[in-house]
Amino acid sequence: MPLTDSHISLAHGNGGRFMRELIEEIFARHLGNPLLDVDADAVAVPVPDGEVVVTTDGFIVEPLEFPGGNIGALAVNGTVNDLAVSGAEPHYLTLNAFIEEGLAVEVLERVIASLASAAQAAGVVVVAGDTKVVQRGEGGGLYLATTGVGVREPQQQLGMAQIQAGDAVLVSGPIGDHGVAVMLAREQFGLKGELSSDCANVLSLTRALRKVPGLRFMRDPTRGGLATVSLEIARATGLGVRLHEPRVPIRAAVQSVCEMLGYDPYYLACEGRVVAVVADEDAEQALAALRNAEGGAEAEIIGHTVNGSPHVVLETELGGERLLEELEDDPLPRIC
Amino acid sequence: MPLTDSHISLAHGNGGRFMRELIEEIFARHLGNPLLDVDADAVAVPVPDGEVVVTTDGFIVEPLEFPGGNIGALAVNGTVNDLAVSGAEPHYLTLNAFIEEGLAVEVLERVIASLASAAQAAGVVVVAGDTKVVQRGEGGGLYLATTGVGVREPQQQLGMAQIQAGDAVLVSGPIGDHGVAVMLAREQFGLKGELSSDCANVLSLTRALRKVPGLRFMRDPTRGGLATVSLEIARATGLGVRLHEPRVPIRAAVQSVCEMLGYDPYYLACEGRVVAVVADEDAEQALAALRNAEGGAEAEIIGHTVNGSPHVVLETELGGERLLEELEDDPLPRIC
Repeated sequence: MPLTDSHISLAHGNGGRFMRELIEEIFARHLGNPLLDVDADAVAVPVPDGEVVVTTDGFIVEPLEFPGGNIGALAVNGTVNDLAVSGAEPHYLTLNAFIEEGLAVEVLERVIASLASAAQAAGVVVVAGDTKVVQRGEGGGLYLATTGVGVREPQQQLGMAQIQAGDAVLVSGPIGDHGVAVMLAREQFGLKGELSSDCANVLSLTRALRKVPGLRFMRDPTRGGLATVSLEIARATGLGVRLHEPRVPIRAAVQSVCEMLGYDPYYLACEGRVVAVVADEDAEQALAALRNAEGGAEAEIIGHTVNGSPHVVLETELGGERLLEELEDDPLPRIC
Repeated sequence: MPLTDSHISLAHGNGGRFMRELIEEIFARHLGNPLLDVDADAVAVPVPDGEVVVTTDGFIVEPLEFPGGNIGALAVNGTVNDLAVSGAEPHYLTLNAFIEEGLAVEVLERVIASLASAAQAAGVVVVAGDTKVVQRGEGGGLYLATTGVGVREPQQQLGMAQIQAGDAVLVSGPIGDHGVAVMLAREQFGLKGELSSDCANVLSLTRALRKVPGLRFMRDPTRGGLATVSLEIARATGLGVRLHEPRVPIRAAVQSVCEMLGYDPYYLACEGRVVAVVADEDAEQALAALRNAEGGAEAEIIGHTVNGSPHVVLETELGGERLLEELEDDPLPRIC
């Protein structure tokens, strides 16, 4: 044990000796890099040529650890992936930790070690951080917030505004894995499964897609799932989105858990997938690029944008149609 | 009321319609600027010439609103001030909000409006944000995290490493105002007072100090107060710090609340002050610079660094000495 205490106390957040020990023994030890200076108010970072892009995300997943990941890996991959789907290469992260008094130090250490591994895998360094400790009962164990800084080539025009009617919609792999893995980890349903979260960075996938000439738009379908990304496309473009249910990859285990518990996999979070919109004539090239990239073996072309009303329609296997509507009630809170 | 709901519910965090309404009606309405794009995964920001510096901070103050500020103003000024004391001009902020189910929408709106005013006063724009909603009982109403990006002139060498024995230590105004104002706002002691937090950006002060040739180091004495900043200087430099009690500005009201309740003002947070270390021959110039700057009228030269053991000694009015030791117990949690 690096700290003499087994659990976090309020004194670990008061700016004094215990806080310094916590920061040195857990955060700096795992995240140490030449830029991180825990004694400085702000850190100077070299910025490579290109357009600087910034993103930020908060993480409140419950439980903190689940098959395939934990909140630390999630906090890196979620922010790295937001940079990746914007067409950027990620460089720097900042990290905020809101720790609840009573959290086991060994849990915190596993989370930060995992965060450090995920950062290394994505090629990013944590350059600044802050910790706050809240009283027992006033926090869900641990909340994290990460801000990411990346750089992209200014000539790559990506975004909702590039999308045209008739474009192909692709997904890089099965949907709903993260949502179901976290749900099962809660054990409130008495179900056990072999499912792991897809929590990972998508850099291999976005780097491969960036070489496809007709690439219009990329997004990672996290909170709200594939349905919500499709609805965002419809709302922003005024186009309809038609998804072909038989082509949408969903693991049998995810499907059966959803059927048992009344969840819809189209609304469940992924944490290592990319949804891409590509000019139809380049769709096969994009599919090949995804399938050859790390994490893209199960990629599929799953639908198209169409002229008409801005609705998202799922064409079912039997020729029926189902409207995917905007989420109102939260099917699964605290998923990321 | 911009939202139809009077209180935040879990659905405001689920990625669907309610979350979109919350973000559009509260966050985007107050924080809107040409760079902020609530539909993008990441935002491109133009970066001026100079050395890019990054900082981040979390905020858990309780109560959320207090005389002289609220958590929104604090979240801007805290991060802006970390950039300012590093010698930088602040440009961009990202914002994470962890909102507890049940928070009154009108409180959230006041906080975000105040955050927007503080950002405007400091000349920064919020370019990216994220909100998460946690269940009732699993958050202290509202936690915020901000990351700041600024730019500084590479030739300005500031930092602990610049400090030499015999340097003067200055503070830009009375200490402990924020700590006492928040304490009184809690009403747990049955005390009422006219005291306001000093919550403000310190940009006028740091800009004035940056023109002083012998400037070595600046820091804002937040969590842990003036004593903790002095101890950090002693630890990093190996020098002693001697503070002259009669010269340290403390408001009579702060002093008397501290005496009544057994707090030590040297350990209480300020949120709009700067501690500066300056070559002794430039101390009077630095003092004049501070006193002529906005918020610096009550600045004082309060002590010196000295050769010898790295302790912080307070020379009392009667010629006695008191050792200021590192904080162990938390005198006042949830102060920022």
